[in-house]
Amino acid sequence: MNRRDFIKTIGLACAGLPVSAHRSACGGLAGTGSTSERRRPNFVVIFCDDLGYGDLACFGHPTIRTPNLDRMAGEGQRWTSFYAGASVCTPSRAALLTGRLPVRSGMCSNVRRVLFPDSAGGLPQSEVTIARALKPQSYTTACIGKWHLGHLPQYLPTSHGFDSYFGIPYSNDMDRVGGEGRQAFWAPKIEYWNVPLMRDEEIVERPADQNTITKRYAEEAVRFIEQKREEPFFLYLAHNLPHVPLFCSDEFRGTSLRGLYGDVVEEIDAGVGRILETLKKHHLAENTLVVFTSDNGPWLTFNEHGGSAGLLREGKGCTYEGGMREPTIFWWPGRIQPGVVRDMGATMDLYTTILKLAGAEVPSDRVVDGLDLTPALFGTGPSPRRTMFYYRGTELFAVRKGPYKAHFITQSGYGSDKPVRHDPPVLYHLEHDPSEKYDVAKDHPDVIADIVKEVEKHRATLTPAEDQLAKRIQKEG
Amino acid sequence: MNRRDFIKTIGLACAGLPVSAHRSACGGLAGTGSTSERRRPNFVVIFCDDLGYGDLACFGHPTIRTPNLDRMAGEGQRWTSFYAGASVCTPSRAALLTGRLPVRSGMCSNVRRVLFPDSAGGLPQSEVTIARALKPQSYTTACIGKWHLGHLPQYLPTSHGFDSYFGIPYSNDMDRVGGEGRQAFWAPKIEYWNVPLMRDEEIVERPADQNTITKRYAEEAVRFIEQKREEPFFLYLAHNLPHVPLFCSDEFRGTSLRGLYGDVVEEIDAGVGRILETLKKHHLAENTLVVFTSDNGPWLTFNEHGGSAGLLREGKGCTYEGGMREPTIFWWPGRIQPGVVRDMGATMDLYTTILKLAGAEVPSDRVVDGLDLTPALFGTGPSPRRTMFYYRGTELFAVRKGPYKAHFITQSGYGSDKPVRHDPPVLYHLEHDPSEKYDVAKDHPDVIADIVKEVEKHRATLTPAEDQLAKRIQKEG
Repeated sequence: MNRRDFIKTIGLACAGLPVSAHRSACGGLAGTGSTSERRRPNFVVIFCDDLGYGDLACFGHPTIRTPNLDRMAGEGQRWTSFYAGASVCTPSRAALLTGRLPVRSGMCSNVRRVLFPDSAGGLPQSEVTIARALKPQSYTTACIGKWHLGHLPQYLPTSHGFDSYFGIPYSNDMDRVGGEGRQAFWAPKIEYWNVPLMRDEEIVERPADQNTITKRYAEEAVRFIEQKREEPFFLYLAHNLPHVPLFCSDEFRGTSLRGLYGDVVEEIDAGVGRILETLKKHHLAENTLVVFTSDNGPWLTFNEHGGSAGLLREGKGCTYEGGMREPTIFWWPGRIQPGVVRDMGATMDLYTTILKLAGAEVPSDRVVDGLDLTPALFGTGPSPRRTMFYYRGTELFAVRKGPYKAHFITQSGYGSDKPVRHDPPVLYHLEHDPSEKYDVAKDHPDVIADIVKEVEKHRATLTPAEDQLAKRIQKEG
Repeated sequence: MNRRDFIKTIGLACAGLPVSAHRSACGGLAGTGSTSERRRPNFVVIFCDDLGYGDLACFGHPTIRTPNLDRMAGEGQRWTSFYAGASVCTPSRAALLTGRLPVRSGMCSNVRRVLFPDSAGGLPQSEVTIARALKPQSYTTACIGKWHLGHLPQYLPTSHGFDSYFGIPYSNDMDRVGGEGRQAFWAPKIEYWNVPLMRDEEIVERPADQNTITKRYAEEAVRFIEQKREEPFFLYLAHNLPHVPLFCSDEFRGTSLRGLYGDVVEEIDAGVGRILETLKKHHLAENTLVVFTSDNGPWLTFNEHGGSAGLLREGKGCTYEGGMREPTIFWWPGRIQPGVVRDMGATMDLYTTILKLAGAEVPSDRVVDGLDLTPALFGTGPSPRRTMFYYRGTELFAVRKGPYKAHFITQSGYGSDKPVRHDPPVLYHLEHDPSEKYDVAKDHPDVIADIVKEVEKHRATLTPAEDQLAKRIQKEG
């Protein structure tokens, strides 16, 4: 990496400082140190559902107010090229928690794109989640919110390394029992969706009162932090919203210029504010890495009830950038060098980054796709991520290497269109053309050849995995 | 205005403060005071050419680095719903400098959309520019950069109230003398465009060295501030770039992740940094209002050489939001309440705002469309702007009132498509649907009826004006 690249990497972080000052300013924060010498850091991962790349004020939304996330970004790092592991829910969550592309765990499928209430599969026990990997390091682990990695007992969070669980185990639009077609979404009522709210392995409320769910998740998170603050902890807070149907508490209803969708996002923002405030109040901020991101792009077919991918192309369900690039913020006062990071990162990298910071072991008996982002976080170097593989189901649709992205197959997120195969692939320069508008394939056969080699290398690392999403509960009688 | 609306107006500004604290924090800065009691404030208006709504990091661009503008926004106000007076250059500039819709001054046309080197017209002497209106208040006034309101002597800045002028008097893609078609833009050379660089009324360089023009404009601005800092001043710095053909100085070439377009924007950003630094160095910051905005949306037909309107629809040349909504920042340390402002504003409002702040007279013998934005700037109330009229040439295409925008006619920015008339108009709720995707006309006949009334009221204020853009210099012989 030359100096220019390094400065690009850091972006705003040390903008304006001469290089010597830059090194000094960033270098002082750089060493991760021996975890045995200091208290192990805490981790909070806040994961939204269907929040779009363009839905936060600090990512350019004109009418959604996110003062807490904006402040978090100002105090931390705003990553502009950070990816989910898939463009729909179940595989995306599997990627984050296992650090592996979902094609490795069987958590993606060409039969059914996500798990449903009648699904019999889930995240296999052979997978090692962040939570499970942290247990030998004496971490207290909690999962709050949407799970969607299997709702049968053997697949629940408490079977995957989490000490506790509180949440709706799948999407908030499942278990549909009422309302008329799409109309039900435009004027949603709790009783239309008979989703369960669980505490650990028990259903404690059904249908879950979705109006208060976002607030209750935040309160549960605050309570967890306050109760467990003496131990190192890992909190995975996966909001069910702003996935449709949209619900929010009375306090937020009708308050956003952006309408109901904005109300919901602004309530999530307020919860982030309460969590950061709690960490500060208990002097945990300097020892806690907080990450905010989303599982996939906005669900565009739901009109104003879906979000916005900003300048990115398309949304949820597809392998264009709008489907998988997420509005991402890292926060760790005193450790993370504030600024904008334009390097690549992915939710799978949270796995490796968190495990390394905790002094935990990254499993060596399997392929882990996650990379350690600490150089970029602490300002000692660029992100190690150079490639991104964009799958739809079990099929590799596109590959990014450096600034170039080759689409071998394209297809809209949701709808009736069929996949279109491209040979040569469609090639976009994402740094020059983040909206994926100008195919430059004919000018760069060398780039395509190089990406094709990456694909071959990548395919050699794949081994067959049982399709967990195709399995259904056998009906009786 | 109720409390909720007021808080919405202020956005981030006082987020988290209780209302009493809010009133106190904002109120203390509120009074504009008598200008006789204090030194008259200085004004710096930095105007870009074809910069898109989504082209600054603080407006969500993923790869363009604008640390100085981001800091300016952090210290000041970022306006997310601020409009140019037209979607192309000449009328947009006329609107800013006269505070009037260009249809009132004859500075828009259905024959030619802007002025060209063979144009014989220009801004009529009957118009009172900001500069001229400030002269009775003893302001020193300078125009640096692109003028494009007539290049014959009687139309130049020095004939319109500016004490001095340094710049290219029209677009940097005019006076074309070389290069092959579009190819000339992809690999631009100075000699392809024989544009003059003027000092006051004299041509001092031809072709202007466009590689250094952005830097030289910034240097000229710094010099002006340093030399005139004892007097109240008005500086209008109108960059020729990032209009195509793209040029930048060696220092910036090849440095932006976004390619040449990014190099250019980042050089403009650096110039903003130097200007703000100069104001701070000479203790002028607390007495200077600085505004940064753009003349119209990005020129999308120039592919990567054009910018991005972010999540907004379309770009330069049309009356969709991408054509006329601009990335706008206000800065005045100690006076302006920092935050995000989601109220409407327009470049025409700079006219009235500046004149009021200077204690100058807003002409009363004509319709002035500009409104005084100081309530929103100083945190005492919302912006007074409730409507926006979107013209293409002399034809009213669309009207925004509150959150609703009615398109009576639509047409793409540049291209071969014909205007399409809509009856009823297409209606968008811009706060819920900033990308103008979901027509809600059928649900809101009342809103349309109300907007139609606004149109009638507006039309009653119009008087015929001579088309200044259709006039051509008579060829000899």
